[in-house]
Amino acid sequence: MSSMLVIGVGLIGGSLARSLKRVRYCDEIIGFGRDRQQLQRAVELGVVDRFTTDLADAVRGVKLIIVAVPMSVMPELFHRLAEVVDAGTIISDVGSAKGTVVAAAKAAFDDQMLPFFVPGHPIAGTENSGVDASFAELYDQRQVLLTPIFETDSAALYEVEAMWRAAGAEVETLTVEHHDEVLAATSHLPHVLAYSLVDMLVAMGDSEKIFRYAAGGFRDFTRIVSSDPLMWRDIVMGNREAILPLLDRYIEGVAQLRTAIHRADGDALFATFSRAKAAKDRYSGK
Amino acid sequence: MSSMLVIGVGLIGGSLARSLKRVRYCDEIIGFGRDRQQLQRAVELGVVDRFTTDLADAVRGVKLIIVAVPMSVMPELFHRLAEVVDAGTIISDVGSAKGTVVAAAKAAFDDQMLPFFVPGHPIAGTENSGVDASFAELYDQRQVLLTPIFETDSAALYEVEAMWRAAGAEVETLTVEHHDEVLAATSHLPHVLAYSLVDMLVAMGDSEKIFRYAAGGFRDFTRIVSSDPLMWRDIVMGNREAILPLLDRYIEGVAQLRTAIHRADGDALFATFSRAKAAKDRYSGK
Repeated sequence: MSSMLVIGVGLIGGSLARSLKRVRYCDEIIGFGRDRQQLQRAVELGVVDRFTTDLADAVRGVKLIIVAVPMSVMPELFHRLAEVVDAGTIISDVGSAKGTVVAAAKAAFDDQMLPFFVPGHPIAGTENSGVDASFAELYDQRQVLLTPIFETDSAALYEVEAMWRAAGAEVETLTVEHHDEVLAATSHLPHVLAYSLVDMLVAMGDSEKIFRYAAGGFRDFTRIVSSDPLMWRDIVMGNREAILPLLDRYIEGVAQLRTAIHRADGDALFATFSRAKAAKDRYSGK
Repeated sequence: MSSMLVIGVGLIGGSLARSLKRVRYCDEIIGFGRDRQQLQRAVELGVVDRFTTDLADAVRGVKLIIVAVPMSVMPELFHRLAEVVDAGTIISDVGSAKGTVVAAAKAAFDDQMLPFFVPGHPIAGTENSGVDASFAELYDQRQVLLTPIFETDSAALYEVEAMWRAAGAEVETLTVEHHDEVLAATSHLPHVLAYSLVDMLVAMGDSEKIFRYAAGGFRDFTRIVSSDPLMWRDIVMGNREAILPLLDRYIEGVAQLRTAIHRADGDALFATFSRAKAAKDRYSGK
């Protein structure tokens, strides 16, 4: 691999570049993005070798392009890439909701390009963002989910897999639909619920006491609320179809617990709490 | 302080005894409880100096009694204490919902005893339980909330405050009602919501994948689900009146987000997420 391009050199893209430099995965890593200062900073930090703000220049000669920009920016970017990228150049992304990204790719890329698009999602991150927050170890032993579609070229899939393994990650493939369902459950829904709880409590006033006395429960909920609201808006909007039915089931379950609390039905509470704890202990290997 | 009695030598009572021994707070700490094996273990571990399973014997000559049993056991225990305790003996508890505990105390203690009952709640704990999980540092720099009532004797309040400070904690006093509202928000409601989420996901099947891909969001939610379901049933049952209106507001807020997601109203999502993050950053000093 001679050279690769990282579009969006923030926490995710920057950490990928750092982790690949660590193992000399390729000769040159080029940065591209909208924010010239971030790109300059990325060069200063040694995250990328050079940067350009000219997309046609950026893609010239590269074998692999990683799109690590907010999901809401991807549709337009894919169209711009379609105009300048040579056939056979592999493009992969890091979006947290794959159905939306695949739809954008299908809308932008023709039959020559689509096979070389490999949808991906590294399950890694921190509450921080920007290139200054990036670090080479972010993906070590973390899972990366690739969601190839019918059209995906198997050699392209293999290249992207190899890249993530070089970055330290463990790679699994699953379908777009399965990915979006599982991630809605494990990540997207919890974020929606946590944002909602904190927003409600703040609206009640007395926030200072509430945050001061925050014991285990609340602290765990609020940690994830530090995440970037714009990124989470994009993720939730991008995975609406998988999130909505889950949210409905969740509201139903909470309403049942509400009834049990209202009726002082301790047995029903105990049954629910016990089932949840048993599952947690079973799967988390406690 | 010559001797004190700890009723219920588990994580909470055991850790209190250990922390007080650390500073030689009193000459002797006696353990009492239902589980003879736990009590024997407590003596082996040096958590208490001796134990008895005879309550009349246990209370003889002690100046201070700490009740660290599940809240559902307190009403009966208070009645038994009322039969054997000398007037002037200070009794305090560690229950997470104070309204219920105070009601039980008022039902059991007469006008001579009630002034010497000091309701308390240490905001500390781990997911583990039992005397083997106890440790002397549990309360270091943690907050203990005391909720004196109209009848509470100020010297008794002072003694219990001094004890918790000796155990390493920071002590604050607030009203029973305020305590129960704030704790419903910061601890009880989050636990109910987390148990509900895990229970729902487990019912959906595919649990193995869900737990395997559990990223930040879900992992934070599920950590608190490891807590003892019996204890949490007691807490939720004991603070129903404060939890119910909060739960109703929460369901309303989540329903509004559901509508926003359904309508693809990204602005509404962004507004909620941003408000929550701003409050979190403001109060958590990020």
